[in-house]
Amino acid sequence: MNQGVKIATIGGGSSYTPELMEGFIKRYEELPISEIWLVDIEAGKEKLAIVGAMAQRMWDASPYDVKIHLTLDREAALKDADFVTTQFRVGLLEARIKDERIPAYYGMLGQETNGPGGIFKALRTVPIILEIVEDMKRLCPDAWLINFANPSGMVTEAIVRYGKWEKVIGLCNVPVMATMIEPALIGKNPDELIYKFAGLNHFHWHKVADNHGNDVTMDIIEKMYEEDNGLPKNIFDIPFYHEQLEQMKMIPCGYHRYYYRQEEMLEHALEEYQTIGTRAQQVKQTETELFELYKDPALNYKPEQLQQRGGAYYSDAACETIASIYANKNTQLVVSTKNDGAVPDLPADCVVEVTAYVGGQGARNVAFGTLPTAERGWLQVMKAMELLTIEAAVTGDYNTVLQAFTINPLIPSGKTAKRVMDELFIAHKEYLPNFKATIEKLMAEGIEVQDQVASHLDLIEV
Amino acid sequence: MNQGVKIATIGGGSSYTPELMEGFIKRYEELPISEIWLVDIEAGKEKLAIVGAMAQRMWDASPYDVKIHLTLDREAALKDADFVTTQFRVGLLEARIKDERIPAYYGMLGQETNGPGGIFKALRTVPIILEIVEDMKRLCPDAWLINFANPSGMVTEAIVRYGKWEKVIGLCNVPVMATMIEPALIGKNPDELIYKFAGLNHFHWHKVADNHGNDVTMDIIEKMYEEDNGLPKNIFDIPFYHEQLEQMKMIPCGYHRYYYRQEEMLEHALEEYQTIGTRAQQVKQTETELFELYKDPALNYKPEQLQQRGGAYYSDAACETIASIYANKNTQLVVSTKNDGAVPDLPADCVVEVTAYVGGQGARNVAFGTLPTAERGWLQVMKAMELLTIEAAVTGDYNTVLQAFTINPLIPSGKTAKRVMDELFIAHKEYLPNFKATIEKLMAEGIEVQDQVASHLDLIEV
Amino acid sequence: MNQGVKIATIGGGSSYTPELMEGFIKRYEELPISEIWLVDIEAGKEKLAIVGAMAQRMWDASPYDVKIHLTLDREAALKDADFVTTQFRVGLLEARIKDERIPAYYGMLGQETNGPGGIFKALRTVPIILEIVEDMKRLCPDAWLINFANPSGMVTEAIVRYGKWEKVIGLCNVPVMATMIEPALIGKNPDELIYKFAGLNHFHWHKVADNHGNDVTMDIIEKMYEEDNGLPKNIFDIPFYHEQLEQMKMIPCGYHRYYYRQEEMLEHALEEYQTIGTRAQQVKQTETELFELYKDPALNYKPEQLQQRGGAYYSDAACETIASIYANKNTQLVVSTKNDGAVPDLPADCVVEVTAYVGGQGARNVAFGTLPTAERGWLQVMKAMELLTIEAAVTGDYNTVLQAFTINPLIPSGKTAKRVMDELFIAHKEYLPNFKATIEKLMAEGIEVQDQVASHLDLIEV
Amino acid sequence: MNQGVKIATIGGGSSYTPELMEGFIKRYEELPISEIWLVDIEAGKEKLAIVGAMAQRMWDASPYDVKIHLTLDREAALKDADFVTTQFRVGLLEARIKDERIPAYYGMLGQETNGPGGIFKALRTVPIILEIVEDMKRLCPDAWLINFANPSGMVTEAIVRYGKWEKVIGLCNVPVMATMIEPALIGKNPDELIYKFAGLNHFHWHKVADNHGNDVTMDIIEKMYEEDNGLPKNIFDIPFYHEQLEQMKMIPCGYHRYYYRQEEMLEHALEEYQTIGTRAQQVKQTETELFELYKDPALNYKPEQLQQRGGAYYSDAACETIASIYANKNTQLVVSTKNDGAVPDLPADCVVEVTAYVGGQGARNVAFGTLPTAERGWLQVMKAMELLTIEAAVTGDYNTVLQAFTINPLIPSGKTAKRVMDELFIAHKEYLPNFKATIEKLMAEGIEVQDQVASHLDLIEV
Repeated sequence: MNQGVKIATIGGGSSYTPELMEGFIKRYEELPISEIWLVDIEAGKEKLAIVGAMAQRMWDASPYDVKIHLTLDREAALKDADFVTTQFRVGLLEARIKDERIPAYYGMLGQETNGPGGIFKALRTVPIILEIVEDMKRLCPDAWLINFANPSGMVTEAIVRYGKWEKVIGLCNVPVMATMIEPALIGKNPDELIYKFAGLNHFHWHKVADNHGNDVTMDIIEKMYEEDNGLPKNIFDIPFYHEQLEQMKMIPCGYHRYYYRQEEMLEHALEEYQTIGTRAQQVKQTETELFELYKDPALNYKPEQLQQRGGAYYSDAACETIASIYANKNTQLVVSTKNDGAVPDLPADCVVEVTAYVGGQGARNVAFGTLPTAERGWLQVMKAMELLTIEAAVTGDYNTVLQAFTINPLIPSGKTAKRVMDELFIAHKEYLPNFKATIEKLMAEGIEVQDQVASHLDLIEV
Repeated sequence: MNQGVKIATIGGGSSYTPELMEGFIKRYEELPISEIWLVDIEAGKEKLAIVGAMAQRMWDASPYDVKIHLTLDREAALKDADFVTTQFRVGLLEARIKDERIPAYYGMLGQETNGPGGIFKALRTVPIILEIVEDMKRLCPDAWLINFANPSGMVTEAIVRYGKWEKVIGLCNVPVMATMIEPALIGKNPDELIYKFAGLNHFHWHKVADNHGNDVTMDIIEKMYEEDNGLPKNIFDIPFYHEQLEQMKMIPCGYHRYYYRQEEMLEHALEEYQTIGTRAQQVKQTETELFELYKDPALNYKPEQLQQRGGAYYSDAACETIASIYANKNTQLVVSTKNDGAVPDLPADCVVEVTAYVGGQGARNVAFGTLPTAERGWLQVMKAMELLTIEAAVTGDYNTVLQAFTINPLIPSGKTAKRVMDELFIAHKEYLPNFKATIEKLMAEGIEVQDQVASHLDLIEV
Repeated sequence: MNQGVKIATIGGGSSYTPELMEGFIKRYEELPISEIWLVDIEAGKEKLAIVGAMAQRMWDASPYDVKIHLTLDREAALKDADFVTTQFRVGLLEARIKDERIPAYYGMLGQETNGPGGIFKALRTVPIILEIVEDMKRLCPDAWLINFANPSGMVTEAIVRYGKWEKVIGLCNVPVMATMIEPALIGKNPDELIYKFAGLNHFHWHKVADNHGNDVTMDIIEKMYEEDNGLPKNIFDIPFYHEQLEQMKMIPCGYHRYYYRQEEMLEHALEEYQTIGTRAQQVKQTETELFELYKDPALNYKPEQLQQRGGAYYSDAACETIASIYANKNTQLVVSTKNDGAVPDLPADCVVEVTAYVGGQGARNVAFGTLPTAERGWLQVMKAMELLTIEAAVTGDYNTVLQAFTINPLIPSGKTAKRVMDELFIAHKEYLPNFKATIEKLMAEGIEVQDQVASHLDLIEV
Repeated sequence: MNQGVKIATIGGGSSYTPELMEGFIKRYEELPISEIWLVDIEAGKEKLAIVGAMAQRMWDASPYDVKIHLTLDREAALKDADFVTTQFRVGLLEARIKDERIPAYYGMLGQETNGPGGIFKALRTVPIILEIVEDMKRLCPDAWLINFANPSGMVTEAIVRYGKWEKVIGLCNVPVMATMIEPALIGKNPDELIYKFAGLNHFHWHKVADNHGNDVTMDIIEKMYEEDNGLPKNIFDIPFYHEQLEQMKMIPCGYHRYYYRQEEMLEHALEEYQTIGTRAQQVKQTETELFELYKDPALNYKPEQLQQRGGAYYSDAACETIASIYANKNTQLVVSTKNDGAVPDLPADCVVEVTAYVGGQGARNVAFGTLPTAERGWLQVMKAMELLTIEAAVTGDYNTVLQAFTINPLIPSGKTAKRVMDELFIAHKEYLPNFKATIEKLMAEGIEVQDQVASHLDLIEV
């Protein structure tokens, strides 16, 4: 690597950037950064300026001399970078709002990672990430790509499968949360427990042992169901069925509630949709507030409010990953990475999310062994759904998207699902150039997009 | 084999029995039957007497001297049998009516083969079939078991996996229907087309070629969508999405409409539920009429009305299977059988439904090759659902049933699903001895079974 | 297909051609051939003329009007062909003689199909077959390729894997022999037994059942070891260990003696090498005699002597395969074909040799199920050896050939093996254009080819 | 775990014991041992006394108060043990001498781990280790079993597969050696390189990267072939073919020379056999000398000569493994352990030898990913050979041993191999009770064991 480390952050105008800066400052001794390039697109120019100034203030307040470069020129940012991080959002929060509101109008979950929303997010994001990979091949062929553009698992799979780029690690803060919250439930410190995760992004399970190797998974599960367990009340407000976890003998991730308590999660989403707005709308409000804060020329540290943004620990995971690769630290992390057999129920060449020791070679996955019947079956259908989505993103084939919708367990198949899909195509037309012909055909059919709040919703509500 | 062939039919009092007799009479020259034992339980005694007399009249009207034995003594029937056929229905149609009506009350599909109804049908049936297998080990260890007790695929899997009995073939009339109807669509005779099926019972796909080996699957699909294709109007009244079949390049089975057009199938089921009654109720009406006909001492041939019963060709498939084994005929049939690699996306030791050449050794499965992504994923989750159901039937574990419900793509998970499940447990309590403790607990909770027509249903309807 | 069937035979000057003609004449009613093109290369011109005239005489003596075309122009022969058969031998028998004699000089088995000789035969043959496939794509894209150029399994694998041509069936007479000889051992006719083969070309096993489905494999094995079993004495003159077959409960093919009785087979080969000449030398003598016979303008039928040529039934298998495809006969044959799961211990996309029903769509493989431990292990290493050889044939990589030699269980690794390999490269230099640089380097090292009889052999003999 | 750690060492009279003691003393601060039980059998009583006294002297010379218990009562030793280490040798070095000399008499490699010798070593050892596991289930059900009884991989597989005991780690010093020697070749310290191993015991490959993740495997390979690379001259005196390693792009283990240079390794073994004695004879001499040293009441440290014993680092690996489990250290080690997908070319439930992070839960295997064609094929046949050997050890089936011999790539199949096998059965008759009937039958045939030096050997030599 060159003198100091060069970081390029695609989507640098994101509200997360200060968290990323905090993480880098904290790790400067082991990760001697010399320059950080924040790159964004024309539409994000203003936010980039605000957050970029804020980032520079944070470094200036630190003992370290690091220069923040702000640019709309991706090539300049990538040139000779050592690490590229991706946190961009094609179509910004506006697009995610549509991902959630159009399904909601029809009484359906939008679910921005694995549901209809997640499928369209992938369709928008995959072509861009593959462009970035092509740039990297030219401009920084030795760099590591640290992805936290969502849906993180599918994006990482696209990078490996279609981009043919293996120096990539996909990140998510969900596993970090579990490992931070659970130990306290059974009176332990995080370093007294041994974790083993397996599955896909937002669709994984884990087992926990104490440091003598005794399985304590069921102990943690029991504590989850106790009244005064000290957990933030909203975290388990729609609990898993105890009977199901007893059979499973593993802990599912929070997103599994969409699959294991589909009915209640749908009710909850529709209630928000009709009252305080969908999750994306709430996040947008928070973001607006955050950017107001960032404008304050006196603010030179990560504000408390960012924590509530939803992606807590996300950037921390990114910084730790980068430092672990740079300093060959062999840190245990949970990452999206090429399987290589770690989850033997899936092909060795697909991307999974597993516990890995991260060091100079990237992720060294911990082999999990075969999953029990129920989880194996569901994992296999979810991976198929992911592969169809990614393939469609590359080929622009409408029928393949229809197949992804059909096999997605969150989407009841039929005319409403197809209608939702068609509206999403039209709603996102400027971000789906590969589907140009399809979308023109749909528009010619006179399909209207319903992203207002449905007045007929009390009829829909289950 | 002994002098003449001995057939034992468990559930001999079924309305299908005359069709079975017709099939045997037609094939007597290649399958020289000497005796047929129709066995049933106390509750089916009367129907056994009626249908048994009718069966004897059919043989008496034939040139062949075959004796029908009617008995409630299963052991006597099995003793030295060459072929055992199973067509029993634990709890009779009354149980199936509950399988359909309880979910319908909550606005959910009952689906008596792969849905909630099918799961409970398997829970009731698997323990009985395993008892029969144990009897066979003692009484007719060289016999072949030809199963068409439903859900046929799960029952066959239980026989192989838990019964450790390999001389079994599971049957279904669905593939037969496809091979009879489709050729005419493209102006061919059945023997001019080459079929290859793969999947699970009520969950398979097929490809078709002409006898020069040219794939004609898409030609048939196109014809399915033409206005005047000559098909009975009800068969494709809820068609698959053309776009989906284009991507698939295979023809799904009729039951796939539950998965590919879940919304419409649910609407249709709820409409019937509130008007003419669920499918089981309709079948019960037909059965009552059939038994009235069977009482006529002048009737000595299969009446036309049986054809409309729904299981057309079922018994024909059974007779052809038996004759093919007996005479080593190498007939092409679609059967449930141990995979052995024919569907490489599933383990070699599980049961699949595939094209096979049936002869003296049973089924010689045609290797289908790997399935495309979408079908592979769904097949894997469905097989997991089946395995969980069968395991639960054997162990009596409530939690495992909950897992089967949860991963079943036809069942939206959550409180309503659990409620439906709990009511089904109580409704079938006399047929689920392995779940005695569970059911007592549920009853103690005061759960009431809702199998009346729901007065609140206009609220539920989607 | 066009009016009458057009057959193109690459390597038409082979001594087998009359057998092929006999097979076609016998099947004319179901396979109405209109023209046969025999194509060969300049070096085979004279033999082509002799055997071509003989072939025309055979048809003229038949009731059918079929024209034999002789040509050195492969394109003309392939143009609009319905079936292409390949029976060519790159470098003729002279090359095979070197394949056998160079290893023998060093006390090693040549083994022209799976040993060092077979590896070099594949290296010479694969590039040519891939050229033919490219021609077929242009000139007869709907034709079937029926390959019996050896090593038949590797050549077929190359056609599917690198040629991307799926309408191919690879043939071998070894399984035919087994099904003709074995029934008599237990007093049965061939049509009273049910065969199931699995493995690779010259490396497969089979199980046998009677037509009631009872396994009779061990009965046949027992008879093989009886003194007066009526078998030609030379067939089992080096028998398998009875103990091994007891454990296996399957019948290996004759070529397995090279693997199961390596020591004795080597002794036998070396003895022939020093006395009557290697197998190829013997065959060459027979061929010379055959061509003398063929010259006789009165000979218009297959002479008896051809039977002893070694490939008995080979051409019969080819004709039966072609007729079965043409008339969609669903004949049971043992063929090299894409696995598709039939042998679940190998990848679904590689070529295996299995029982299949051959009809309009080509081979419909019978799923064999998993193999026992010993056979599974060996099958997997042999398939790896085949894949390395084929890859090397395409890439021209010397090191990959060295790996194929090293893992081949017939070749003791080390300096002698490498020397044999290097000499074989030089000996076949004109037929290995992909290895031009390698061979020049070896020649520059002054390596001399030892294909004379070794005077030092009593030192070598084990 | 109880107050202090209790270690039980089966085969405590081994000459390795002082090394084990040294390792424990060095790690006392992290592994606070309170008692060590050295257990041996009657035949080893004298050696146990000598080495036991020596062990006690070593602890007495340390700052720690640890009591050595010497016993012939295995149950007393196992009772409440925290760690059980196994280093016993059924039949002592005398048995290994026969394993080597009988094959050598017939010009065949004995190879005490994977060759004929290794097969018989496993046949002797597996039944004993399964007895120990049964004892552990009763006496110390929470203990970890650290096996370094050879053949370590097969013994570990037997413990997991037949003993159903998962808390086991199998060890070998071969990978340790590689990681100690190789870094210096390219001017690095061991902690600057990242290793990834995959395969089976004495049959694995590895890849190496620097701590920036750059693959340096080929750099190390190049240095191995340089004249003045500083390596002990005997280590690479029979080098691998450079061309082979170029194709492999991995480094094989030293034992691979038996497979990749079989001819030269056989020559070397036969030369030793005829001159200085086989490896076991040499080791026996060293052992005799070591025990002479151990008798010295002044000796209270591991003598230099032990280093040359051949198993250098073996005990160090064992002590580090135990300390890592006890203190949840997550140390990178190469161990035999249940695959769980780490080597996706082998079943997830078999034992492999891979890089793992060892901590409180035992081994967390690093997923290696699929192997290249050549290595995959050979790995699969070797695992099959192992499984057959272990199965035979449990069932006592002669025919299964014959199959293991036949598929073993080190053994040329045929009459000599079978003769060697039969003699080995007789030679080890007292240690093979499961094969009693077989051996009596062989003895009745008058087979004589040839373990003297063959006078006819100049005839054999290749």
